[in-house]
Amino acid sequence: MCAIFGIAGAEEASNLTYLGLHALQHRGQEGTGIVSTNGQEPFAHKERGLVGDIFSVAVISKLQGHSAIGHNRYSTTGGNTSENLQPLLMKSSLGWVSIAHNGNLVNSKEITKRLENEGSIFQSTSDTEVILHLMARTQERDLVKALIQALTQITGAYSLLVLNQNYLIALRDPQGFRPLVMGRLHGKPVFASETTAFDLIGASYEREVLPGEMVVVSLKDNFSIQSLRPLQDISPKRCVFEQVYFARPDSVVFGSTIYHTRKNMGKQLAKEQPAPNADIVIPVPDSGVYAAIGYSEFSKTPFEMGIIRSHYIGRTFIEPRQSIRDFGVKLKLNPVAETIKGKSIVVVDDSLVRGTTSRKLIQHLRDAGAKEVHLRISAPPTAHPCFYGIDTPTKKELLASSNSIESIRDFVGADSLGYLSLDGLLKVSSSSAGEGFCHACFSGDYPTPTFNN
Amino acid sequence: MCAIFGIAGAEEASNLTYLGLHALQHRGQEGTGIVSTNGQEPFAHKERGLVGDIFSVAVISKLQGHSAIGHNRYSTTGGNTSENLQPLLMKSSLGWVSIAHNGNLVNSKEITKRLENEGSIFQSTSDTEVILHLMARTQERDLVKALIQALTQITGAYSLLVLNQNYLIALRDPQGFRPLVMGRLHGKPVFASETTAFDLIGASYEREVLPGEMVVVSLKDNFSIQSLRPLQDISPKRCVFEQVYFARPDSVVFGSTIYHTRKNMGKQLAKEQPAPNADIVIPVPDSGVYAAIGYSEFSKTPFEMGIIRSHYIGRTFIEPRQSIRDFGVKLKLNPVAETIKGKSIVVVDDSLVRGTTSRKLIQHLRDAGAKEVHLRISAPPTAHPCFYGIDTPTKKELLASSNSIESIRDFVGADSLGYLSLDGLLKVSSSSAGEGFCHACFSGDYPTPTFNN
Amino acid sequence: MCAIFGIAGAEEASNLTYLGLHALQHRGQEGTGIVSTNGQEPFAHKERGLVGDIFSVAVISKLQGHSAIGHNRYSTTGGNTSENLQPLLMKSSLGWVSIAHNGNLVNSKEITKRLENEGSIFQSTSDTEVILHLMARTQERDLVKALIQALTQITGAYSLLVLNQNYLIALRDPQGFRPLVMGRLHGKPVFASETTAFDLIGASYEREVLPGEMVVVSLKDNFSIQSLRPLQDISPKRCVFEQVYFARPDSVVFGSTIYHTRKNMGKQLAKEQPAPNADIVIPVPDSGVYAAIGYSEFSKTPFEMGIIRSHYIGRTFIEPRQSIRDFGVKLKLNPVAETIKGKSIVVVDDSLVRGTTSRKLIQHLRDAGAKEVHLRISAPPTAHPCFYGIDTPTKKELLASSNSIESIRDFVGADSLGYLSLDGLLKVSSSSAGEGFCHACFSGDYPTPTFNN
Amino acid sequence: MCAIFGIAGAEEASNLTYLGLHALQHRGQEGTGIVSTNGQEPFAHKERGLVGDIFSVAVISKLQGHSAIGHNRYSTTGGNTSENLQPLLMKSSLGWVSIAHNGNLVNSKEITKRLENEGSIFQSTSDTEVILHLMARTQERDLVKALIQALTQITGAYSLLVLNQNYLIALRDPQGFRPLVMGRLHGKPVFASETTAFDLIGASYEREVLPGEMVVVSLKDNFSIQSLRPLQDISPKRCVFEQVYFARPDSVVFGSTIYHTRKNMGKQLAKEQPAPNADIVIPVPDSGVYAAIGYSEFSKTPFEMGIIRSHYIGRTFIEPRQSIRDFGVKLKLNPVAETIKGKSIVVVDDSLVRGTTSRKLIQHLRDAGAKEVHLRISAPPTAHPCFYGIDTPTKKELLASSNSIESIRDFVGADSLGYLSLDGLLKVSSSSAGEGFCHACFSGDYPTPTFNN
Repeated sequence: MCAIFGIAGAEEASNLTYLGLHALQHRGQEGTGIVSTNGQEPFAHKERGLVGDIFSVAVISKLQGHSAIGHNRYSTTGGNTSENLQPLLMKSSLGWVSIAHNGNLVNSKEITKRLENEGSIFQSTSDTEVILHLMARTQERDLVKALIQALTQITGAYSLLVLNQNYLIALRDPQGFRPLVMGRLHGKPVFASETTAFDLIGASYEREVLPGEMVVVSLKDNFSIQSLRPLQDISPKRCVFEQVYFARPDSVVFGSTIYHTRKNMGKQLAKEQPAPNADIVIPVPDSGVYAAIGYSEFSKTPFEMGIIRSHYIGRTFIEPRQSIRDFGVKLKLNPVAETIKGKSIVVVDDSLVRGTTSRKLIQHLRDAGAKEVHLRISAPPTAHPCFYGIDTPTKKELLASSNSIESIRDFVGADSLGYLSLDGLLKVSSSSAGEGFCHACFSGDYPTPTFNN
Repeated sequence: MCAIFGIAGAEEASNLTYLGLHALQHRGQEGTGIVSTNGQEPFAHKERGLVGDIFSVAVISKLQGHSAIGHNRYSTTGGNTSENLQPLLMKSSLGWVSIAHNGNLVNSKEITKRLENEGSIFQSTSDTEVILHLMARTQERDLVKALIQALTQITGAYSLLVLNQNYLIALRDPQGFRPLVMGRLHGKPVFASETTAFDLIGASYEREVLPGEMVVVSLKDNFSIQSLRPLQDISPKRCVFEQVYFARPDSVVFGSTIYHTRKNMGKQLAKEQPAPNADIVIPVPDSGVYAAIGYSEFSKTPFEMGIIRSHYIGRTFIEPRQSIRDFGVKLKLNPVAETIKGKSIVVVDDSLVRGTTSRKLIQHLRDAGAKEVHLRISAPPTAHPCFYGIDTPTKKELLASSNSIESIRDFVGADSLGYLSLDGLLKVSSSSAGEGFCHACFSGDYPTPTFNN
Repeated sequence: MCAIFGIAGAEEASNLTYLGLHALQHRGQEGTGIVSTNGQEPFAHKERGLVGDIFSVAVISKLQGHSAIGHNRYSTTGGNTSENLQPLLMKSSLGWVSIAHNGNLVNSKEITKRLENEGSIFQSTSDTEVILHLMARTQERDLVKALIQALTQITGAYSLLVLNQNYLIALRDPQGFRPLVMGRLHGKPVFASETTAFDLIGASYEREVLPGEMVVVSLKDNFSIQSLRPLQDISPKRCVFEQVYFARPDSVVFGSTIYHTRKNMGKQLAKEQPAPNADIVIPVPDSGVYAAIGYSEFSKTPFEMGIIRSHYIGRTFIEPRQSIRDFGVKLKLNPVAETIKGKSIVVVDDSLVRGTTSRKLIQHLRDAGAKEVHLRISAPPTAHPCFYGIDTPTKKELLASSNSIESIRDFVGADSLGYLSLDGLLKVSSSSAGEGFCHACFSGDYPTPTFNN
Repeated sequence: MCAIFGIAGAEEASNLTYLGLHALQHRGQEGTGIVSTNGQEPFAHKERGLVGDIFSVAVISKLQGHSAIGHNRYSTTGGNTSENLQPLLMKSSLGWVSIAHNGNLVNSKEITKRLENEGSIFQSTSDTEVILHLMARTQERDLVKALIQALTQITGAYSLLVLNQNYLIALRDPQGFRPLVMGRLHGKPVFASETTAFDLIGASYEREVLPGEMVVVSLKDNFSIQSLRPLQDISPKRCVFEQVYFARPDSVVFGSTIYHTRKNMGKQLAKEQPAPNADIVIPVPDSGVYAAIGYSEFSKTPFEMGIIRSHYIGRTFIEPRQSIRDFGVKLKLNPVAETIKGKSIVVVDDSLVRGTTSRKLIQHLRDAGAKEVHLRISAPPTAHPCFYGIDTPTKKELLASSNSIESIRDFVGADSLGYLSLDGLLKVSSSSAGEGFCHACFSGDYPTPTFNN
């Protein structure tokens, strides 16, 4: 998963892009980059690390111009290389073009092979480079036309921001897997993965960039905006996992506020998977808080912050050699013994992927005196890998891909385990965000061919 | 405010101390240090920065021995110096002695002046150095006796851990301003400012080190423990601000769990300062969460996480030059518009010191559509500076020292403003933690002379 | 200017490459990189900084395999980007290919334009990327054949190391502008820009890779070696500036030891430009030392280290605001007053480019009491920019491009100024290294068309 | 060994002190510090690392005031602590006092023990702290008087700079072991370990601070200067090792220019230890260069820079696992094979302490083809440890303390080995710098009792 942000016609475009990327940091922490332009040259900076660490006053002051795009990259499996950081920036017969991509193409391997056979070279392992090649090969000199021709050849999930000296273009794939919203700041257009970026810079939220829509901002014509629909209509397949887990709770995504969608998931979960004799409902912070509030409200069981999360956790810490305890989970999540002791508790989380953290946490809750632990997950079992940009484990590592709910319950050590049903999830999601979701990670029902895999 | 941690007779004393300091990071982020011993030499490392950044495997492996003490230092007003980091380590006729101190002496200036006149030199601005001087001047060769003689001369707040080749000593001043707890790990003694450090390393909580108590662990006699009461009895004056604000919610401090004390403050606040027509109760995260849960429960007004906190905030960020907005508060705390719009809301926080953050936050809530904002503070107005170790602003900067509640309400822009009464606070605190609190920051009723000031 | 190093069939190929790059650090300090292979996958690390800072045990241990190539990059005018660091690594129909380049192509702009028109994209500003594109476009599946086809299209200076899973290839352009030597370590082939890299790792020097020669090491056939001459013969044009300035004095370059060539330049300079009444000869350290020894020997004028060089100079230092002195030169080069006072001195340096440093240095020498300062340069005036890989200033900045020797003498403030003649330089260089030098920077006589400029 | 620098009445005192410390970097690389004053408060910054890395514009701008002292610290055996960095800064009945010390007290252990018995505490292992204690204990309120009383109690080597709000004091012990010079900048006084610091900032050299002299600059009386001789006269014992090894060649130390003294040592060495059949004289760079020039001049044997030194060596580098070569020496010092091959060579160095580097270097010279290697050392054998501030190894590690010259020759593998005689050394040193040297490291003839050891 990644974040993208773009702005045109702003007095301090790169500074506002930096702030936007800061607000979207939760979507990717591996590295970050900004490419800006004054309508002629590009200015670029990319580096591994957090937005707040990478961009200094000195760096931002070099990123000149009225328009900019930025990107936060999620963790990758690659080594210490910066080749995969975005926005990518290339030169071709189109002049310079920069591109920032959230999503994943499913036919990139096939296209890469074809392009290599035609003499192309690839310097990253990113599927985004494929789009640059396709544009360059079109023989078109106009960015908009070249981009449209490239799009006809790719399949999969892509929310894109594309910048050159003439245009800032924002677009979503026809199925709209990944979010992309549009707003205004002082009358000029601004784009972001989520609305929380607009809140920070004081931009007003206008609407989603629609699935299949291409919004073209002309840098040379007073930042005027044109909406194109170059691709054939397909029914939208928004990523339901954005609702469940990925987006910030204060964001509006796919037209609805995440906080409320998650709270409604909690209510629906309470309806489907009650725990009648429970004394309290406690979330796994921070991810489970919103569904737990809903569960508590529907079930009329008191809500307690029975697990405290530490925010000082870095990447690694030093374990004693003879340790038999698991410091990792404990350092981050510590139960409040007095709240828990002797109680029957409902623990609400938003997902259960490998199950190892839940297992340790439940052991800690029992050590703290919990009488019964009823684990409730505000989504269905994650049983299938995602090919559209969510960094899920392989099928083998997904606990739910090959285990019954009962054996998962047994593995994590809960007294009972309940998941939200797919129908329940979609009902709650659709009521706020409209129809048309991709739920392949839960159902295995992939809305595109999955050529690459 | 600071954190201290100590352990004796452990296989990996410095590694466990590092973990303990990690769990106590919230009590001080400026710098950290550990001094360990094998019963002969001391091994020391101190540095500015966070526990997780300062201690590496290489550093910890040099901190040899079975016993160690550690310290986290709170921010200071001084410059880029490491002289004030602790544990202090000195050599004198007593041999080497190391000391870690949480608290503040009120007669240190007077003693410093006297010692300087007698020829002492001071290399830090820390009052802890005074204790070392007093011990060295006693002519005693035994650490316990020298320490007792030094204690008779100092007044104020001190929870101390003292280490030399023979002893690890834990002690609290007779009024017990600052917390200090004692536990066991594999039968051996461990000390910490708060119990959350015990939870992490798997130690069991035994009891408070009592006000005026000196617990002496003999490193040369199989880590046996002796409890002394060398000082005259005075009635305890525990810091009520630890309950309100400072300690971690999952800690047991002064015998009671902070989470529950804060929740009870919220209930009492709802009783004293109702907001009858409010639609929802929302906390200022994370500090206001626990009192807000109590307020919601007592008032039967729904609890909502209506403000989302970002955890990626570093020390500085780069504001646009022409900015008229305040990005600082917004970057950290963002309202969920849909939750708030058109609602009458109760906002619960644990303190209101300078009022500038509250003012900006309330403006953001109104921008997000709040109909009414009723600010509720789960403590009395902070009107007096602390001389016992809490780093409060000067009296002039304390909004409540020279303003009526009405003018504070006006300044922050709330529709109503209600504080918890001192009686209410003490009732709630005492019911759990027993009698005897220092509440000078609220009442101005200082339990000692305040010579230094 | 840059350094390249490569080794095949070695037990610790990346560690030896790191050592080789360390010995060649003087040829490029901006950044460094290594790509290694086990005959299947590539392993890569590139970063801005010095060899000794970038490569740690952890990094090197990830660079697995029996064969590796490495590169040190000279300073560039670009910003904080790592795109231009080498070795480049790409994927194409040839599989993965990595390339390290010392030199500069003169027709890269023309080729780039053609390739862009055919749909290629360029991600760096490096002309090395051009070679990768040309190879990929050949339709060949064999690296050797693809490379030969690419070479027929490029003109200019290139010493190259190319690595894939089957081959390590070392080659020089037909004119042999840049050096490249071949040696043996435990019977296996090793390549480097200069022999000093062989000295460090204990490899024996065998010979130059010849101008126009391509040495192919088969990774799949026991590291056997084949020498090809795929390109048409042209008369060699070795860079005479390597002799004058760039190479390390302990290296054998173009078949002769730099130290002796420079000493001979000093002798020839003494013959051509005597300073009959001089009391002493002093070098500008370290670059002028070797010619000064020759000048002293021929002229029978005593050699003195009359200027001391500090080796603690970093990139920047802090000047007092009201400063009228130039601390920069002084911090690096300080005259020994007692040696100089009242003396007529010959100062020997190897070049005079902008003249500002010489001007300041001569002023310092006069302040230290020098009676007369006779500046002698062991090369002709640098009057023309280099298009073959030496990073000279633009023609406008070259003092000698538009000033007479008399006006340069006046500018730098010397009593006399003498340059080595081009004939003298070539005589000395040729006597050791054979015929055929490029001396365009002195003569303006460019041995190729200079399309790019 | 360490460096000290001080200046009073200057417009940018801390910036000039930074430059002075930069020029004196060779005397200490472990850490550095500056304390400045505006005549009231002190401003301080100390940190481990090089001068050029530690002091930034931001740091220097905080070091306000017209007067400052600074210190570079030589490597210590201690760990990662900053307690021993100087200038020390303390508060006592004298107010604040800061002190920078070059040298070593021989009775500090005795005094420390006495002071500890009287109740003093020591926070560093530095003998400099002793001086602060002694001053504080005098009951004097005047810095000059307190300092004089302290000096009567200490024995050993000390060049000191002392700063408080009223005075900057420069002084040397009565025997004048360590250098300290005095100069003027714009009429105001400036002090430094060596004159090279004056050269850099453009100050004029005036004279040595004399052995036993105390120069008092009044910060409150227009920076007027007074010279005191508070201590009893003793015959001077200047450190002859400063001449041989420690000081920069461009400095005037003890009244003579180091460069010329070293060159004269080389001449005397050639006279005492000729190598009649040698073809060339080569120095071990950089330390042996000056004596080698003298050796060459006297012996009429050609001087060649036959060993090239790399200046890119950092603290560590990564050796191949299976390595049998010694990369450490080779990376730093590489012979020029063509210069050496088949020759009988004289290699000149300034000292031979443990012999391991010489042994490896001689092996490399033989590998490069040297026919004979005649090692000449421009000082007598170093057979005794220094107690006056030079960081020599223990007696056991000193090759010359227990081995005959013949067995040393055998160990290092030279064909012949010759040292300069003590008489020869003193003759050469005295002819320039006057009478009175400490040569204990060569002769074992210690000019003071050596209580500490």
